[in-house]
Amino acid sequence: MPKISNKGHQMPESPIRKLVPYSEIAKKNGNKVYHLNIGQPDIKTPEVALNAVKNADIKILEYSHSAGFDSYRTKLALSYQKIGLPINKEDIIITTGGSEALLFAMGSTIDAGEEIIIPEPFYANYNGFATASGVKVVPVISTIDTGFALPPISDFEKLITPKTKAILICNPGNPTGYLYSEEEIQQLAALVKKHDLFLIADEVYREFTYDGYKHYSIMDIAGIEENAIMIDSVSKRYSMCGARIGCIVSKNTEVMSTAMKFAQARLSPPTYEQIASEAALDTPQSYFDEVITEYKERRDTLIAELNKIPGVKVATPKGAFYCIAQLPVTDADHFAQWLLESYDYNKETVMVAPAAGFYSSPNVGKNEVRIAYVLKKEDLIKSVQILGEALKVYKN
Amino acid sequence: MPKISNKGHQMPESPIRKLVPYSEIAKKNGNKVYHLNIGQPDIKTPEVALNAVKNADIKILEYSHSAGFDSYRTKLALSYQKIGLPINKEDIIITTGGSEALLFAMGSTIDAGEEIIIPEPFYANYNGFATASGVKVVPVISTIDTGFALPPISDFEKLITPKTKAILICNPGNPTGYLYSEEEIQQLAALVKKHDLFLIADEVYREFTYDGYKHYSIMDIAGIEENAIMIDSVSKRYSMCGARIGCIVSKNTEVMSTAMKFAQARLSPPTYEQIASEAALDTPQSYFDEVITEYKERRDTLIAELNKIPGVKVATPKGAFYCIAQLPVTDADHFAQWLLESYDYNKETVMVAPAAGFYSSPNVGKNEVRIAYVLKKEDLIKSVQILGEALKVYKN
Ligand SMILES: Cc1ncc(COP(=O)(O)O)c(C=O)c1O
Ligand SMILES: Cc1ncc(COP(=O)(O)O)c(C=O)c1O
Repeated sequence: MPKISNKGHQMPESPIRKLVPYSEIAKKNGNKVYHLNIGQPDIKTPEVALNAVKNADIKILEYSHSAGFDSYRTKLALSYQKIGLPINKEDIIITTGGSEALLFAMGSTIDAGEEIIIPEPFYANYNGFATASGVKVVPVISTIDTGFALPPISDFEKLITPKTKAILICNPGNPTGYLYSEEEIQQLAALVKKHDLFLIADEVYREFTYDGYKHYSIMDIAGIEENAIMIDSVSKRYSMCGARIGCIVSKNTEVMSTAMKFAQARLSPPTYEQIASEAALDTPQSYFDEVITEYKERRDTLIAELNKIPGVKVATPKGAFYCIAQLPVTDADHFAQWLLESYDYNKETVMVAPAAGFYSSPNVGKNEVRIAYVLKKEDLIKSVQILGEALKVYKN
Repeated sequence: MPKISNKGHQMPESPIRKLVPYSEIAKKNGNKVYHLNIGQPDIKTPEVALNAVKNADIKILEYSHSAGFDSYRTKLALSYQKIGLPINKEDIIITTGGSEALLFAMGSTIDAGEEIIIPEPFYANYNGFATASGVKVVPVISTIDTGFALPPISDFEKLITPKTKAILICNPGNPTGYLYSEEEIQQLAALVKKHDLFLIADEVYREFTYDGYKHYSIMDIAGIEENAIMIDSVSKRYSMCGARIGCIVSKNTEVMSTAMKFAQARLSPPTYEQIASEAALDTPQSYFDEVITEYKERRDTLIAELNKIPGVKVATPKGAFYCIAQLPVTDADHFAQWLLESYDYNKETVMVAPAAGFYSSPNVGKNEVRIAYVLKKEDLIKSVQILGEALKVYKN
């Protein structure tokens, strides 16, 4: 029997998917499961996007341009300009989700065996894209005690080697909910300038900021035009994760013409979803206002409820819709599995994502979980109540 | 300025895209361009697929399962069973086009630095997927004199090294139009068994066979269940290239669970297009009958017309909708560019794909072009007439 590749062996399993068999057990046991583990919002997709697909007059569902519809790129550039980002059509390649944009960004800038520095905890699939690209992830740790603020620049500098090609940040952060300040972004800009590195910023949660905090995009920082690569996506912005539309954005023409070769090899991003995404640019501001208000209330509810549980520590997220909670357990992996397999509170239980999977360093974050606040307030309140009751009886 | 990766530098440019600037020149010169260069059919997408999207009642465009809709996989397995292929739901992962299936297949089976043997000329993007995966392509040459039949097995064996992990075939072939016989498929099966290799078969043109020739799928060959990986796509079958839906199929559970990790990292294939693809399975047989009849007539027209031109040699394709034509020129690259940039016949010209880009060996196929017969018969006749007139005046 032929052998599969070592790369295949090394592809990480998603920290959430590992729990799926246990959630099946919970359901078999007749328990209702509250899903605090996923980043799939329950928010409605803007009607303007859905209607555009309904009304599309397609006779032949053709390949689009490999960089995406020209009309979409033009309108998307305008929408960036409206929020102050100096981005032109030529700086954009439409991709199949932010996921593919991340793959293109790594493939275009980092060779097999070279290194990318990422503050951890980080979006777990960065590991997968790095493994698929043969790239080595070098984590720099951020901690719950600082609310997952940017680690000191000196920590980054300690890790920079001749093999380091890029720094990847997620802003606002999944799973941390941390939003980098302008000062932090400026520090990173100075760092990548000094060491001639790429700065890849995953800004797919850009709109989701609370308490008046403002998002600073790396595309807004003068002087790092050749270093900056932005990753974006319609998935969360318009609650259209199933569209699989995102983009890679850079002013570095060498990066873009290289990314374009990756884009050409896979032919084009999906057509219907580009129609939806282009139309989504006309979503009224009221939609976002409502969504952000809803998420802010959910966040406030979640944090308030979590703080009521003895031994739980949580950093209030400033953006996105996740937070990391430290629990009074020694092995959150085991706890999460136990919640599904062996626990119920009035025939209900919760599914959380053990945070260890979001760290690249071994044995870090073992008492932490990621909680997504993509559920209604009542459900969040119930979920945290169940979590609290469970912690009372759980034996470490 | 930071440096892009060497992998990026090595990503091949598509042999067709290189000509695009020249086709712009042709248009600027006021010339009509007949596109013999592309694999984008002009055939209508089945209405049942388009209507399914129109009628989809979506409120939240959610991520689907990473392996694709369960309902789609179930129905797709049934459709394979109907044509005699013993494929179950568990053997299928839905991908974003056949393109992504090829990437997953290479990533799951071949490590960076290892080798894949491919009969050339081959679909040019195999080079791109191999480069992106760090895999080395080892070509084994097939020639126009045999109609691009399978090269002798001894030619393969000469190329097998300890680094060889897989053989990749395209059946029927793009760009050759060759359809492997059952005997050829059996020879390959014996070869991969003997040397413990994977056999990856790109069967995206399966339906497109003419003159009563039957397609033999590698999924139909007993004894190579652990070796066989099939690549499929809705792009050509239903003329829905823009859907970006394909699949990877294998009975090797280790391959499938590894491919699944790649699938999970990128979350899911597009939702609307899965709806379209699932519905497309109900396309009436009459649609295919008409389409195949149309392509057969186009092929016959094209080959008859080409054979009228002195010095042109062409192998009659048995499947797909491409052929390779040998022209009385020394550099088809230059000829193709000249056709666009400097030639017109009554304000009309043609765009062909120089075949060198479909070979991995250097300096092979330099006097060949690939012609796709995705245009109406009248247009094909006109196009070949223009080609003939052009050859009369072209100076090598
Ligand atoms: C931080 C981050 N980046 C990228 C993605 C990828 O999203 P998509 O491929 O749906 O655009 C996600 C999805 O959850 C994410 O959380
Ligand atoms: C031989 C072959 N394989 C795979 C593909 C990829 O097609 P898709 O990604 O649209 O399924 C093509 C497209 O032209 C092709 O010709």
